[in-house]
Amino acid sequence: MTTLYPERYFDEFAVGEKFVTPQMTLTREECLEFAKRWDPQPFHLDDAAAAASIFRKLSASGWHTAAAAMRLLVDSGFMRGPGLFGVGIDELRWLAPVYPNDTLHVEGEIIELIPNPAGKRFGLMRIDTRVINQNGVCVMSYIANLSARMR
Amino acid sequence: MTTLYPERYFDEFAVGEKFVTPQMTLTREECLEFAKRWDPQPFHLDDAAAAASIFRKLSASGWHTAAAAMRLLVDSGFMRGPGLFGVGIDELRWLAPVYPNDTLHVEGEIIELIPNPAGKRFGLMRIDTRVINQNGVCVMSYIANLSARMR
Repeated sequence: MTTLYPERYFDEFAVGEKFVTPQMTLTREECLEFAKRWDPQPFHLDDAAAAASIFRKLSASGWHTAAAAMRLLVDSGFMRGPGLFGVGIDELRWLAPVYPNDTLHVEGEIIELIPNPAGKRFGLMRIDTRVINQNGVCVMSYIANLSARMR
Repeated sequence: MTTLYPERYFDEFAVGEKFVTPQMTLTREECLEFAKRWDPQPFHLDDAAAAASIFRKLSASGWHTAAAAMRLLVDSGFMRGPGLFGVGIDELRWLAPVYPNDTLHVEGEIIELIPNPAGKRFGLMRIDTRVINQNGVCVMSYIANLSARMR
């Protein structure tokens, strides 16, 4: 599923452009390892605590899902260009639990391109970003704000 | 700096409550390890590529900073209560680079408490969250949206 894109300047992206990333499966081992280091809440670490929680069973940290999405975005090669990097995230929502062995991919669409925001020399790109599991359920969504160099 | 808080229901939090988390230092080794797994962009992996980038030297992935903030929030013990978990993030901004050996802490303030949003049975808590480095520079900010059980 990997698609490679050329490096592009801001001016070469278009509103409405869509892309799909490769997939990644989150193993139970990695879910526990990530949670232990970055999000050691009982319902991410312990099966009994998870069973008693709203998630019903052990689930991945929401930040693990976010990190996986970033990796998939990098692997897709879509967001590559001179001076292109993330400046912020809007409206991030964890919509459904991610469980060990779930397989995720990301679908994105450029929804806005703002040249020279506030008189600055770069362009701002806004990307609607959806993380989708093997059942077609959108488990996390956000709008990524990227800065990119203009020609 | 660690302060332990009791577990609380939604009704026991108050707008204007502030808290400060413990600190964490991001080592170069962990910055590279995190970036290699989750955000393998050249400027997060390679000193020469970093020197040629807007960051000027090797910097941590923004998602590494976000994960560190989560760990500090858990360690603070502030956000503990029955049925309390994160549902989303608004207005996340990476305001300044985080470099290896930077020491971060988080300062938070409850800015809004919404009981029964859209008729639901829980409360929604909004927390202004600022990640601050050893020089007092805010490197990342966001608003955390948490769901919490009501009495």
